[in-house]
Formats: sequence, structure tokens, C-alpha cells
Amino acid sequence: MTYCVGLLVEQGLVMIADTRTNAGLDNVSTFRKLTVVERPGERVLALASAGNLSVSQTVVSLLEEGIEDPETGIVAKLDNQPSLFKAAELVGRAIREVRAVHGPALAEAGVTFDVSFLFGGQIRGGPMRLYMIYAAGNFIECGQDAPFLQIGEHKYGKPILDRAVRFGGDLYDALKIGLISMDSTMRSNIGVGLPVDVLVLRPGALAPEVNLRIEAGEPYFHDLRERWSAALRAAHMAIPRPPYGPKRAG
Amino acid sequence: MTYCVGLLVEQGLVMIADTRTNAGLDNVSTFRKLTVVERPGERVLALASAGNLSVSQTVVSLLEEGIEDPETGIVAKLDNQPSLFKAAELVGRAIREVRAVHGPALAEAGVTFDVSFLFGGQIRGGPMRLYMIYAAGNFIECGQDAPFLQIGEHKYGKPILDRAVRFGGDLYDALKIGLISMDSTMRSNIGVGLPVDVLVLRPGALAPEVNLRIEAGEPYFHDLRERWSAALRAAHMAIPRPPYGPKRAG
Repeated sequence: MTYCVGLLVEQGLVMIADTRTNAGLDNVSTFRKLTVVERPGERVLALASAGNLSVSQTVVSLLEEGIEDPETGIVAKLDNQPSLFKAAELVGRAIREVRAVHGPALAEAGVTFDVSFLFGGQIRGGPMRLYMIYAAGNFIECGQDAPFLQIGEHKYGKPILDRAVRFGGDLYDALKIGLISMDSTMRSNIGVGLPVDVLVLRPGALAPEVNLRIEAGEPYFHDLRERWSAALRAAHMAIPRPPYGPKRAG
Repeated sequence: MTYCVGLLVEQGLVMIADTRTNAGLDNVSTFRKLTVVERPGERVLALASAGNLSVSQTVVSLLEEGIEDPETGIVAKLDNQPSLFKAAELVGRAIREVRAVHGPALAEAGVTFDVSFLFGGQIRGGPMRLYMIYAAGNFIECGQDAPFLQIGEHKYGKPILDRAVRFGGDLYDALKIGLISMDSTMRSNIGVGLPVDVLVLRPGALAPEVNLRIEAGEPYFHDLRERWSAALRAAHMAIPRPPYGPKRAG
């Protein structure tokens, strides 16, 4: 399992990815699912993956090695795409190449070709963008009305995003809400777990403002989890009891 | 889509079911999914369903008409089972009978035989119980460690249940938490919607203490939704901003 969320607000981009993987129920491990491609001052791109780990890793490796155009001999990489849109297309192409190689044998083995990516960042001269790329290589772009995208186990952590994320809000509030969304998911689904990788990008900076791993026991995240739990408890206790049923004293 | 939740605490049983159904994306309708079987002073049983509506309705109708034993001629109904466990077994048997009749043609049409039930209540002389019954007719019973069961779109509304429901808590607090869980689900998934049917049973009463439908605009539920939204907003705003990244003034 996996949970990744990307939040694209006016002040920048936040990407958060957990690291838990499982092959079956009893083979649980930790793998990094957030890949960052940096050329400071020129571009910073981030790719978060969900789905079959062998597929997502192969896609990322293929993007790192590059895809050669048989006619021109030019090797296309995330590193040399002229725009974020072109780079998203390249990710889609890499997914289709991996499917062409591995898809038939996976299908024969009864394994679904299941992969999805969040892909965001900025290339000098272009806007900051965030995409969700599907297993067929097609993609959608994050908009201002619902300024976030999720992959993996997205349902547990969606209510807080639906309520709280605003395009015009502060960048670090978006990070905070993303971490609450991650916490809600980890609390209810054992397939999603710490450590969590976090990336924060500010438009124009063309280098990460934050690129860190939150481990178990990290003080801020630990405090956030405690405070959120306490606040939820206080919130539901502050709501009056339902007036249905027999009238009761008190 | 559907969301139903049952909460079994020391003081009693709460069952909540939404009413939205959809055949495809553009055929959305309202159907009651919570069936109550009452013989005041003797038994009160409730069945909430998720999955394919034709299957769940057929199971409920079969249980109402009864299943005749070909050898003894005795017709088994929810109404005449000696214990809640036997009644749950009968629901399972009804599911398997419906599968025997409709399963092959559904499979041919590419439709999954997808159905699940929450089944709870009390029969005089026995304890109050709550079961989740699967499409194969097998079932699990609700325990005290996690005193709730869910069917349908269960993920959005699970975090609040995980955090807030306590077996020893007040019955109407359990109802309140169940309604918050329903609200979170409706807020994030358009396939789950009002009106919502609610049943509250107290051990020994052998008749519903609450059996009502909450329509859009019902004052308490409307107020609960507003208060919960406001409290969540206040809760995430009260958490300090992440200390990661460059130090900022204020």
C-alpha cells in the first residue's frame, strides 16, 4: 500500500509520500517512493509513485537512463525536457514502454499493471505544475478549485483535504494539512506508514525549500499527531448529543 | 455506492445507513437500505445492506417470505429464529440461495455478485449482537476492542471511528460519532447521500428507542455538520506551522 498527496497552492507545491510497501500481507518493507530531480536554478521535479513497486521503480529508472529516439538518437530524460507538460508526457511514455516490456508477462502471472504517479515541479520560464499520471500514461493536472491530488490509499485522508486546503492559503498550512491527511491515513490503514518523505517548493526558487524525511519520533510530526487527536476528541465532545429518542435529564 | 455503519457499545446498538444508489454514473436514486424486523418485547432485528441493489433486495425479500426446509416443511424467517446467531446464519443462507439463482447469469453479464450486510439486534433471552455478513454468507461479529462495523464506502469515515468510539461510552455519543462518520463520507464521496436512516436499540428494550429518517435540512444533523466543519477548521489552525524550511518572522 501507499499514500502520496500533492498540494499545489498559490505560494508553492507540497509533496508528501509514505514509504511502506508490502508484497502480500506478511512481507512489509520500507522503500522511498518520492524521487526528486534537481538542477538548481534551472529545474526541480518530483515524482511520487503508487502501485506495483517493480513497475514504478522500473519507470523511474527508465526516466533516469533516458528514452532514446530511434530516428534522431536524442535521449529524452526528465532532465532535458523543455516544459513540465513535456516532462509529464515523457513519464507517460516511460509507463507505456514498461508496460510493453513487462505487461504481457505480468498479465500471464495474474498481476495487474497497476501504477500511478504524482508529478510536479517547475522548469525555468514555466509555471509550477502538478499532474497525476495514470497506468495508461494519460494524466490530469491539478486545478485551483481542489488544489490537491492523491494516489494510493486516498480515501482516509481526503475529508480533511476537502475541507481545509485553499489555493490562496499559506504554503506551510498546506504542508500541515497534508501531514494531517497522512496521519489520518496511517492511523486507519496499516499499509501506510512512517517514515514520510516531504518536499516543499516555492515558485521561482528552482530548488527545494524543504526536502526531508520524517522518521518515527520526529518532534513536530509527533506533536501534530497528538494535537490533532486531542482536537478531534474535543471537537466531537463539544457537539451536543443527538436530541432523538426519549428526553433525558442533563 | 453506499455507506452503513453499526456501533455496538455497552449501552446499546446504533445503525446508520445512507439511501443513495446508482446504476452507472448518471442514474442516481434513493432507496432504503435499512430494514427493521420488530416484534415488540420479543425481538428487534436490523439489516443494513451494501452492494448490488438487486441482490440485497432479493435477499431481504427472501428473508421476509422465508426459506422452507424441504424435509420438515418449516419456513425459516428472521421472525422465528431462536437466536441472533441462528438469524445471522439464516441471512448467510439467503445470500447463498440468491447466488444459486442469480449468480451464474450475473457472472455471464459480467456483474460481480457483490453484497454485504450489517445485521444486529436482540432476541429475548439473548445478548445484543452485531454482525457483518459477506457475499459468501460467512460473517464476523463486532467486538469490544473496535466496537463498530462498516460496509460500503467505509474508508472516508473510518478515522473518526478509530479515534473516538469507546465500548464504554454513552449510547448517544456513539450515535453522534456515527453521524460524524457519515458526514465525512458524504462530504468526500458523492455516491453517499441524504436522507440517512437511523436506528438506536437499548439492551433489554426489545423495541427501537430511535427509528427515524434524517432528511436534508434536519436541524440537528445540519448543526452537527456545521459544528464539525468549524471545529476541524479551528483544530488544524490551532496546530503550529511546520518548523521545516527557512526561519520566518512571525
